Amino acid sequence: MSGVLSGKRVIVYGVGAMGAIITRLLFEKGVEIVGSIGRSPTKVGRDLGDVAGLGKTLGVEVENDPDRVLSRGADVAVVCVSSYLDAMHDHFARCLKHGVNVVTIEEETVFPWTTAPEHARSLDALAKENGVTLAASGAQDVFWLNLVTTLLGASHRVDKVVGHCTWNVDDYGPEVANHLHIGHAKDEFDRFVATSGWPEFVARQTLEALVSRLDLSVKSISSDVTPIARSEAIYCGSLGVEIPPGSMTGTVDRTVVTTREGPQFEFTMEGRVYRDGETDSNHWQVFGEPNLQLSNSEASYRFTTCSTLVNRIPDVIGAAPGLCSLDKMCTPSYKHR
Amino acid sequence: MSGVLSGKRVIVYGVGAMGAIITRLLFEKGVEIVGSIGRSPTKVGRDLGDVAGLGKTLGVEVENDPDRVLSRGADVAVVCVSSYLDAMHDHFARCLKHGVNVVTIEEETVFPWTTAPEHARSLDALAKENGVTLAASGAQDVFWLNLVTTLLGASHRVDKVVGHCTWNVDDYGPEVANHLHIGHAKDEFDRFVATSGWPEFVARQTLEALVSRLDLSVKSISSDVTPIARSEAIYCGSLGVEIPPGSMTGTVDRTVVTTREGPQFEFTMEGRVYRDGETDSNHWQVFGEPNLQLSNSEASYRFTTCSTLVNRIPDVIGAAPGLCSLDKMCTPSYKHR
Repeated sequence: MSGVLSGKRVIVYGVGAMGAIITRLLFEKGVEIVGSIGRSPTKVGRDLGDVAGLGKTLGVEVENDPDRVLSRGADVAVVCVSSYLDAMHDHFARCLKHGVNVVTIEEETVFPWTTAPEHARSLDALAKENGVTLAASGAQDVFWLNLVTTLLGASHRVDKVVGHCTWNVDDYGPEVANHLHIGHAKDEFDRFVATSGWPEFVARQTLEALVSRLDLSVKSISSDVTPIARSEAIYCGSLGVEIPPGSMTGTVDRTVVTTREGPQFEFTMEGRVYRDGETDSNHWQVFGEPNLQLSNSEASYRFTTCSTLVNRIPDVIGAAPGLCSLDKMCTPSYKHR
Repeated sequence: MSGVLSGKRVIVYGVGAMGAIITRLLFEKGVEIVGSIGRSPTKVGRDLGDVAGLGKTLGVEVENDPDRVLSRGADVAVVCVSSYLDAMHDHFARCLKHGVNVVTIEEETVFPWTTAPEHARSLDALAKENGVTLAASGAQDVFWLNLVTTLLGASHRVDKVVGHCTWNVDDYGPEVANHLHIGHAKDEFDRFVATSGWPEFVARQTLEALVSRLDLSVKSISSDVTPIARSEAIYCGSLGVEIPPGSMTGTVDRTVVTTREGPQFEFTMEGRVYRDGETDSNHWQVFGEPNLQLSNSEASYRFTTCSTLVNRIPDVIGAAPGLCSLDKMCTPSYKHR
């Protein structure tokens, strides 16, 4: 059912913060790392073990020519480059053309059929042509999709499902903090959203995958974002500045999905700069018969995005060819080796 | 992936408290109830809807001749009669011989291969001969097996998994309360266990299914039981008596499984007479990298045993022939219809 990791031939495609964590996990699981792709001049040409801070070399050079690395072949490429399918399409296509399966932390690929339908269809076709699979995973795979669908296996009647998670902005570097307007005024943010819009993101893809997994059909989808602030100052490590009281420390992104069959789904993601001691949380309530509830107090989303992705490698290798959105994937499982 | 319930042809085999709940759930899901089997003279000959307290008749008579009911054919028999495979073997065999799939709340069938190996093998062979499936489900399917294995999909390294649940003795009638020696002295219970032994039960089967699902192999299994009491009196509804301070109000059943590969598993089931306002709980901790944690505060085990079983009907119909222990079953899922 689960397959094993050890001995699988893997290319690390993207050697940023997440790629570095994943490299260590792959190494510790006995995976054979056969290539590594990066862009930064400070990393290209160096050994991957060195770049990933393993304290040892792996005999794998970080190269900046993806086609050359991919042409040597591999079971799967672990792709950690960017968060939207528009930016990732060509990276994925390149892997698939070389007959290499792809597993990625790129969030839109979790369920890309409605937000990026053309990219999704072309990548699906390309994957099928080449007999390989493209799939995304990450913390949402376990915490926001599969734990929830498994819990619902105990439901007789589902009226409404309400999820809420918190994540630490400081876990993801200055780009994410700036994207969320950390340190800005709330009314300025509201004006920005009113004029420029705000991307629907992880919450939407997660709920669409959830609804599809349950064999329900979407009637409506709506999303909103609310800026949050604290009454006391807080230090933002990723920006290296203190955020004064009243200025933005994060956002609450909410998506609501209604279905033709009746059950309704709401998921709120609260991303903010944490105080010392705060941990990533996950909380879901099911209203229906019976009422059900599930909580995780230590979800460690940054790390579990990497560990879940690594556990997915044998699943992706074993999946049918095509773009396999998470609703169609088997349940994630622990791979001891 | 999940199949639907409505229109499936089901026999309700056993019309006690659990069978009555299940009858209502089946009716509400649009299942076609084609037969019903009972023994009690107060139930045989009456309409199942009446026996189950539905407030309406179903046009299905409770009959006491299982072969006659089974010979008329059905997609599946929902069997709720007794808790051990030794007592259930002949009931299951009868269904299988008639080419009827079985889904049961009988707890040993969750993973019967080591505690009842001969029964398990003969029923497996009989099911295969007749092209049908025998499987067990219940609250453990969602709460103690599949939520845990899904959570472990986020683990990089598992050292130890520790589970703890509480359940209400008063939910299961006087037989269970008497089996647990409710109201007796603790030292008397300890002497009883020392001389007569104590059956390994749900915790063992659950952990064995869990270890098998993870592709790990059992090195050792040990179980123990501890009587519990309260310092204040408590009323036991199922026995209709007040339990004096210091007398037994429940037991703590614990099973520990070690594996050849390293990870260790411990599950403690605390069954006791609840005070008003207490709810069934479920709590799991994973020690490793990372540490993980999962809690359910409203598990409603009696009801979710019934609702999970009903959700399993399409899975059991679709499963490969044989005795399908829970480690080999797909993940449970909500069936809207």
